Amino acid sequence: MTLLKCSADFCLIPMGTGESASVSKYIAEVQVLIRSSGLKYAMHSAGTTVEGPWDEVMGLIGKAHELIHSLGVPRVQTDIRVGTRTDKKQSFTDKVTVVENILKEKDAAASV
Amino acid sequence: MTLLKCSADFCLIPMGTGESASVSKYIAEVQVLIRSSGLKYAMHSAGTTVEGPWDEVMGLIGKAHELIHSLGVPRVQTDIRVGTRTDKKQSFTDKVTVVENILKEKDAAASV
Amino acid sequence: MTLLKCSADFCLIPMGTGESASVSKYIAEVQVLIRSSGLKYAMHSAGTTVEGPWDEVMGLIGKAHELIHSLGVPRVQTDIRVGTRTDKKQSFTDKVTVVENILKEKDAAASV
Amino acid sequence: MTLLKCSADFCLIPMGTGESASVSKYIAEVQVLIRSSGLKYAMHSAGTTVEGPWDEVMGLIGKAHELIHSLGVPRVQTDIRVGTRTDKKQSFTDKVTVVENILKEKDAAASV
Repeated sequence: MTLLKCSADFCLIPMGTGESASVSKYIAEVQVLIRSSGLKYAMHSAGTTVEGPWDEVMGLIGKAHELIHSLGVPRVQTDIRVGTRTDKKQSFTDKVTVVENILKEKDAAASV
Repeated sequence: MTLLKCSADFCLIPMGTGESASVSKYIAEVQVLIRSSGLKYAMHSAGTTVEGPWDEVMGLIGKAHELIHSLGVPRVQTDIRVGTRTDKKQSFTDKVTVVENILKEKDAAASV
Repeated sequence: MTLLKCSADFCLIPMGTGESASVSKYIAEVQVLIRSSGLKYAMHSAGTTVEGPWDEVMGLIGKAHELIHSLGVPRVQTDIRVGTRTDKKQSFTDKVTVVENILKEKDAAASV
Repeated sequence: MTLLKCSADFCLIPMGTGESASVSKYIAEVQVLIRSSGLKYAMHSAGTTVEGPWDEVMGLIGKAHELIHSLGVPRVQTDIRVGTRTDKKQSFTDKVTVVENILKEKDAAASV
């Protein structure tokens, strides 16, 4: 068991889905699954970030693979960026705020 | 020369920066660089998505590495998810809208 | 539980380890952990590929994070490329062979 | 221009190629392209590592996208792990040796 809290950003690619390059209908199914998990998450154009205990987050991504296979897709490839830290508690939603605050200070200093 | 338009989402990690686990000051410097490039971009908690001609986008990420090295950082590691498509013109900002519209239709159908 | 068999290639980066850019001693510790797992694996210069049931493979990478934290590292960031397929059984070690055989055929055809 | 030397490991995924989950014929075409580049490289089961000046390496991956599109594939998605360092010259082929030497020393110490 891995109880460590993590923040995982993943980009899932269904393969062997036919001639169409569009995969949005599969991504929508994965979003429904994530929503039902109860974990904190945010979708962006290059993936979805999910936060929670390691086993739950990774188990959720595994269930996403199973779901896509159950829709008839023979192969699924996912890229995951996962981070853990023990020095402080920080939600993934705080990260952008921290950087934006530094940028505001830099802008303010530059405009003096 | 590679004129192909691409959408690249990258997560840059400075290494050998000392005992602190925080890298937000470096990420802020990279944001200033990206802003000055004139390319369309969006920052999220797990990276930044940049859109434009392949050589410009990849050149920008290379300049980000050079910038971080110039700040005294001995090693930089970046994960890039880059996509190109020839079947249609689509900005990275459209992708989330497409998935959200499918989700709205699903929700509407479920609530009937 | 996710029993789906997967092949996961991961690149783990310890952060906040001091002024040195070298992380090989941490990677060696992770190799010892992987070796003790009994899962099939192969190390290369940009990561390690591990194969097995989803939960075991992802649990192993989680234990690698815990191990690195236990050595005093405050932050760990990992990139994982994970693939699953239902159309055939194929070990990750077969993939290179398949491509090399195509290359040999191309070379043979070109030399006629 | 970015003259910085880098080591880039990339995993290219053709999308919209039909019902088959196999992409080995496309990967073989990319290998022929890489071989003709003159850059140092190594293929493994989860990608190919290429080493050289930033612009050449990234330009090569861009040409790989163009090549796959020229074969009729409407969408290509690639994951790249790229690293640069200024503290020492090290080829990607040295990295595995460094870790293996640490493992040998650990094994030797354990067997005393």
